[in-house]
Amino acid sequence: MSTDGLSAPSATSAADSGLPCTVRIIGVGLIGGSLGLALTAAGVDVQLQDVSPGTTALAVELGVGSIAGEGAAAPELVVVAAPPDVAAELVAQALRAHPQAIVADVASVKRTVLEGLRLRRDQGVLSDDDLARYVGAHPMAGREVSGVIAAQADLFLGRPLVVCPHATSRPRGAAMLKRIAVELGALPVVMDAERHDTAVAHVSHAPQVMASLLATQLLDADEGALELAGQGLRDSTRIAASDPRLWVEILSANAAALLPVLRGLSDRLDEVTEAVAALTGDPAPERGSRRAVASLIADGNRGVGRIPGKHGRGTDAFVTLTVLVPDRPGELARLLTEIGEIGVNLEDLHLEHSLGQPVGLAHIAIDGTHEALLTGELRVRGWTVAEA
Amino acid sequence: MSTDGLSAPSATSAADSGLPCTVRIIGVGLIGGSLGLALTAAGVDVQLQDVSPGTTALAVELGVGSIAGEGAAAPELVVVAAPPDVAAELVAQALRAHPQAIVADVASVKRTVLEGLRLRRDQGVLSDDDLARYVGAHPMAGREVSGVIAAQADLFLGRPLVVCPHATSRPRGAAMLKRIAVELGALPVVMDAERHDTAVAHVSHAPQVMASLLATQLLDADEGALELAGQGLRDSTRIAASDPRLWVEILSANAAALLPVLRGLSDRLDEVTEAVAALTGDPAPERGSRRAVASLIADGNRGVGRIPGKHGRGTDAFVTLTVLVPDRPGELARLLTEIGEIGVNLEDLHLEHSLGQPVGLAHIAIDGTHEALLTGELRVRGWTVAEA
Repeated sequence: MSTDGLSAPSATSAADSGLPCTVRIIGVGLIGGSLGLALTAAGVDVQLQDVSPGTTALAVELGVGSIAGEGAAAPELVVVAAPPDVAAELVAQALRAHPQAIVADVASVKRTVLEGLRLRRDQGVLSDDDLARYVGAHPMAGREVSGVIAAQADLFLGRPLVVCPHATSRPRGAAMLKRIAVELGALPVVMDAERHDTAVAHVSHAPQVMASLLATQLLDADEGALELAGQGLRDSTRIAASDPRLWVEILSANAAALLPVLRGLSDRLDEVTEAVAALTGDPAPERGSRRAVASLIADGNRGVGRIPGKHGRGTDAFVTLTVLVPDRPGELARLLTEIGEIGVNLEDLHLEHSLGQPVGLAHIAIDGTHEALLTGELRVRGWTVAEA
Repeated sequence: MSTDGLSAPSATSAADSGLPCTVRIIGVGLIGGSLGLALTAAGVDVQLQDVSPGTTALAVELGVGSIAGEGAAAPELVVVAAPPDVAAELVAQALRAHPQAIVADVASVKRTVLEGLRLRRDQGVLSDDDLARYVGAHPMAGREVSGVIAAQADLFLGRPLVVCPHATSRPRGAAMLKRIAVELGALPVVMDAERHDTAVAHVSHAPQVMASLLATQLLDADEGALELAGQGLRDSTRIAASDPRLWVEILSANAAALLPVLRGLSDRLDEVTEAVAALTGDPAPERGSRRAVASLIADGNRGVGRIPGKHGRGTDAFVTLTVLVPDRPGELARLLTEIGEIGVNLEDLHLEHSLGQPVGLAHIAIDGTHEALLTGELRVRGWTVAEA
C-alpha cells in the first residue's frame, strides 16, 4: 500500500479501470471491512480509520487495507461505515478533513443523515461545496453476525447497492459509487433518500421488528416445547439474533417511515387475534373468523410472491417444473443438456437429493410461457415431469 | 409388495427388526408420502390409500408404496395423514375397518382429534377397545411446499416426532411409533395432547401467523422497494408461502392454545408501535421509547437463543463451494459434466441467479474431504470458484 503520496502500481491499475485510486474507510465493521476486502482485491489503495486500534489492527491482518497514517495519500473517496446516529457527524468531519474527496456513508437510513448535513450547512459548519460532495449509499447486505471478523469480499455479490444522490449533489459522487457497485458484483439502484427509507421500512426494518417480536414469545415456552423447534421457526427468527444497539439506532432513525407499516401490522394482528378468540368458542363461531385467518395466510402468500427472483420480476412470472432424475452419474447433466437443446432458459435450478430415494428431484424454474413446450418435449424424451 | 395376504421377504425382515410388517397410510401428501418412502426403504409393506387416484398413482411411481387393493394384508398399523379437521373422522373409520390395528394420526394438533374420538366413544360409535388402539403422533417436519411430489424419505431425519398417548391407550401403540421414529432417524418425544398443543402454538403456529402477517405488508410496498429485498426478508417470510386451506384448519383447531400467545404478541406490538411513534417526535422523545425498542430486540436475542442446535442432520460433513456460471445455455450442464469427470459426487446443488447479474452462482455441496481436489480441478478447467 502506498503511504508516501505516490501511487502504487496496483492503484494505477485501479485508476485505469475507472475506480478511485485511494479510498478511506471510516468505521471498520462488517460493512466497512467487507468493502475494504473487495476494493483491495480490485487494486484500490484502501486506508482504514476506526476509533478502536484493535479493530484496525485486526482488519489489517485480515487484508482489509492499511492503517491511514500521517502523510497518507489524499483519498478520492471517503466511505463512512458507521451507525445512523453518528453517520452525519462523521460525514461532516470527513467533508472538512478531505476537501477534494467525495464522501459517502453506508448507513441503513438515509434521510436523517442528509438532514443532519443540511442542518450543518445552514449553521455554516459546512459549505455548499461540502454538501455537494456528499452522496448517500446503502448496500443491501448484512449478516446477523457483526464486526470486521465477519467481513467477506463477496458480501455484496448479487445484492442491490442503493445510491442516493440529493438535490445539490455532484454527479461524480453517484457515478463513482455506481462504478464501485459494479466492481463489487452488486446491482446499483438509484433512488432518493426518502424513497429509500420507505423501501427499507418494508423490506428490512419491519422484518427485524417482527422477527424479534416472534422470538420474544419463546421466552414463555417451556423447555420441552423448544425441543420441537423446526426449520420454520429457525428461519423466521434468524435475524432476531441481530445487535440491539445497532438496531435501536436504525429503527429510531427511520421511525417516521416505519410507523405506518407497524400501525398496519398492529391493526391486522389485533384483527387476527380476535378471530382466533372467536374460534375458541363453542358452539362454532361465525364464518367471518375463519375468513379472517384464511385471508391473512392468503395475503401472506401474495406478499411473499412479490419478492423478486432473477431480473427483478416477481416470482409469479416463473413456473417451477419438477423432473425426476435417476440417481446415476451424468443424468442431471443430460437433463440440462436436453433442456438447452429444447431451447428453454433455466431461471433457477434446485436439485434435491433425498436419502433413501432412487431418484433426485430437479426443480426447474422457467419463464411461464415455456411450460407446455418444455413439459411436452421432456416427456417425449422419457423424463417424468410432475405437475407443480 | 405383498397384496395376497402372504408376507413378502422384505416384510419378514421388517418384523425381525421390531417394525410392523404392514402399514397402511391414509392420505398420501407430503407427510404420508415421506413416511411411505422411509418405511418402504426399511422393508415394510406400505399400502397407500388416498381420495385421489392420480395422487396414489404418482406415489407408486415415486416408490412410496403400493395401492391398497382388495385382499390386501391386514395392516398392523394405520397412519392417517390428513388435516386436523378430518383426522378424527378418518381415524374413527380406520379403527372400525381394521379392528386389530393400532391407528395413529399425524395431524399438527392433537387435542381436538382425541376429543373427537372420545365424543364418538361416548356416542357409541367407537368402543373402549377402539379408543385404546388409537395413539396420536406429530412429526415436526414439513416444508412450505406440499403434496407427495415433495415427499422425502429423510424428511424426519433429526426432527422430533411427538408421540401422544392418552389415559386409556395401550402401551403397544406408543411403543410402535417410537420404534418407527428411530427407524426414520427422528427423535421420539412423548407428551400428552394438551402439552403438545401448547408447545406447537409457540414453535410452529405463532411463527406461521407472524410470517404471514409480515408478508402482508409487502402488498403495500412499491415495486422498487421490493428490489431491495435481501436474505433477512426471504428467510423471515419463507413459511408465508404455506397453504391457506391447511393452515386455517390447523390454526382453528389449536385456537385455544394459540390465543394467549397471540394476545401477548399483539400487546407487545402495540407497545413497540407507540414507542416508534414517540421516536418520530421532535424534539427528542423521552428515553423510555428507545428502551422499549432496545428491549424488544434484546428479548428477541434471548428468545432465539433458546432454540436448541440442530440434531442429527450432520451438515457439518459437507462443504459448499460456489462456482460462477456464465449466463449462457449449456454452461451449467458443462459444469456438472466436468464435476462428474473429476469424480466427485454432488450432495446438493442450488443455482442462484441474481438480479441483473451476468453470472449465476452454483452452490455445490460435496463431501468435505473432496474440497481441495474439486476446487483445484475446476480452477484448472477455467471455472471461478469462490471461497466459502
